[in-house]
Amino acid sequence: MKALPILIVGSMAFDDLEFPRPVRDAAGGCVHSRFEDVIGGSATYAAYAASCYAPVRVVAVVGDDFPEATLEHMRSRRVDTQGVERVSGKTFRWVGRYHADMVGRDSLATELNVFADFRPKIPESYRDSRYILLGNIHPALQLEVLDQVREPELVVADSMNFWIEREREALGRLLKRIDVLVINDEEARLLAGEHNVSLAAAEILRMGPKSVVVKRGEYGALYYDAEGVFAAPALPLHEVVDPTGAGDSFAGGMLGYVAERRRTDHAAMRRALVNATAAASYCVEAVGTRGVQDRSRHELAERVGRILALYRVDP
Amino acid sequence: MKALPILIVGSMAFDDLEFPRPVRDAAGGCVHSRFEDVIGGSATYAAYAASCYAPVRVVAVVGDDFPEATLEHMRSRRVDTQGVERVSGKTFRWVGRYHADMVGRDSLATELNVFADFRPKIPESYRDSRYILLGNIHPALQLEVLDQVREPELVVADSMNFWIEREREALGRLLKRIDVLVINDEEARLLAGEHNVSLAAAEILRMGPKSVVVKRGEYGALYYDAEGVFAAPALPLHEVVDPTGAGDSFAGGMLGYVAERRRTDHAAMRRALVNATAAASYCVEAVGTRGVQDRSRHELAERVGRILALYRVDP
Repeated sequence: MKALPILIVGSMAFDDLEFPRPVRDAAGGCVHSRFEDVIGGSATYAAYAASCYAPVRVVAVVGDDFPEATLEHMRSRRVDTQGVERVSGKTFRWVGRYHADMVGRDSLATELNVFADFRPKIPESYRDSRYILLGNIHPALQLEVLDQVREPELVVADSMNFWIEREREALGRLLKRIDVLVINDEEARLLAGEHNVSLAAAEILRMGPKSVVVKRGEYGALYYDAEGVFAAPALPLHEVVDPTGAGDSFAGGMLGYVAERRRTDHAAMRRALVNATAAASYCVEAVGTRGVQDRSRHELAERVGRILALYRVDP
Repeated sequence: MKALPILIVGSMAFDDLEFPRPVRDAAGGCVHSRFEDVIGGSATYAAYAASCYAPVRVVAVVGDDFPEATLEHMRSRRVDTQGVERVSGKTFRWVGRYHADMVGRDSLATELNVFADFRPKIPESYRDSRYILLGNIHPALQLEVLDQVREPELVVADSMNFWIEREREALGRLLKRIDVLVINDEEARLLAGEHNVSLAAAEILRMGPKSVVVKRGEYGALYYDAEGVFAAPALPLHEVVDPTGAGDSFAGGMLGYVAERRRTDHAAMRRALVNATAAASYCVEAVGTRGVQDRSRHELAERVGRILALYRVDP
């Protein structure tokens, strides 16, 4: 069966990253603890991960400083960039500093630039997309995307504490129209007003989505739907080089697998979560998108094998 | 094959516990947020969990205030209490207050009482024990236990930051004589001087033990030995009533399963870890030892089934 294309809407960005200790740069040569103008953004990471499994269509906005070479590289990975709008001005930039544990981080600056006026316009050729990934943007914009697609089969949405706290009403409307909400444990607690993760997930399911994925960083993720709960442990790595984009790669890998298999039942979603885990584990192994951008389908399958071996229990 | 007896050395204690909100008491009736004179201690929890799988022999010390009824109940669960020394004075008491997240906790008081002079004396009838669990006591005392047993086959030891920081030399000698070290992630980092858990585990294996279990609370545990790593996710629970003793129940359940099956290979240890997870999940469902003390072997098997279903991935 042919993999169906995935529509991904989100940010494309430059990231300036500071790490607590020097890490190998993408080329593998020198080591630095500061990196500037690293290509990032939720749509970029998710598109690269998803493209290992299925064709991807991206809707995003960049300024005139964004390298055409990146868009070209994405196209070489079967990512359609027709929906990437280039407007006059500077590209969205995030400046972040990671703590010593490589988990906590401070946002030193968030320069929205051209992203401030982003209104996702879905090209006519994208509107038949069945698999939709709504990156972490204003829930009202996520809703606008859904108004522009004809027959969504599985809609996955990301969100964050910012929207949960300030745009509760729009987020509530969004939750009624999506299939899978992907958030981290703190966001799940905030959204549900409940500390216990399982109770929080149950409460979120009552808000509308058919399933919810609770990301727990280095511990992995929990997936909840009407049929039960799946625990997807993360692969313990000897070195986390750069955690930026891990959550977006996770979502991209998950939906990529679904679009490839064209199955959304509980058992298929378990496998999708393992593939998501594999994509995220590649992502954190290098600075920026370098860990995930050149992976083959075969490499993903290999990593999935390693992950399954991690928690296999023979009778 | 007949389960072999397990020797457990550790503390028996009274715990005074304070929770951030009222919880059901053991009898299931009223709810309180403070509990006094709760039966606790590492040996008590571990013995109850292990006794679901195999006969248990306990070495500990109690004061004249410790209820004979508890020892009687333990004997009814095939726990041999011949090695429980009763001396004049008060039993060890821990006073703890749990934080709102039910994970963090403050030790408000640690009254060693008769435990201060504890020197484990292994009764002659215990000295043929093959499976040994050294609860979290001074590493010099843990070593004294090993000097008193004839043919240990699998020695499991617990430790804590207190000994890692102050008794590094004795702990180093102990590590060369044990098979499995069971500690939590913070202790693993402290012991190895390495933040990354996988690297810390590799460093700990170089110190002597054949394997190391890194406990990560609600996230589960990681098991490392020469053959690889096993991730044992915890069962997500709707309510954690009392986390006290979860780690001891975990260690007891793990060694209990090993003593029942008399296998210590990598595949068997994976199953042992799942049984450990099951015992710990029962433990936290009630105040004190009530969650684990009356469990049947069948209930443990049932819980193991639920846990395996949690992360089963069908091809």
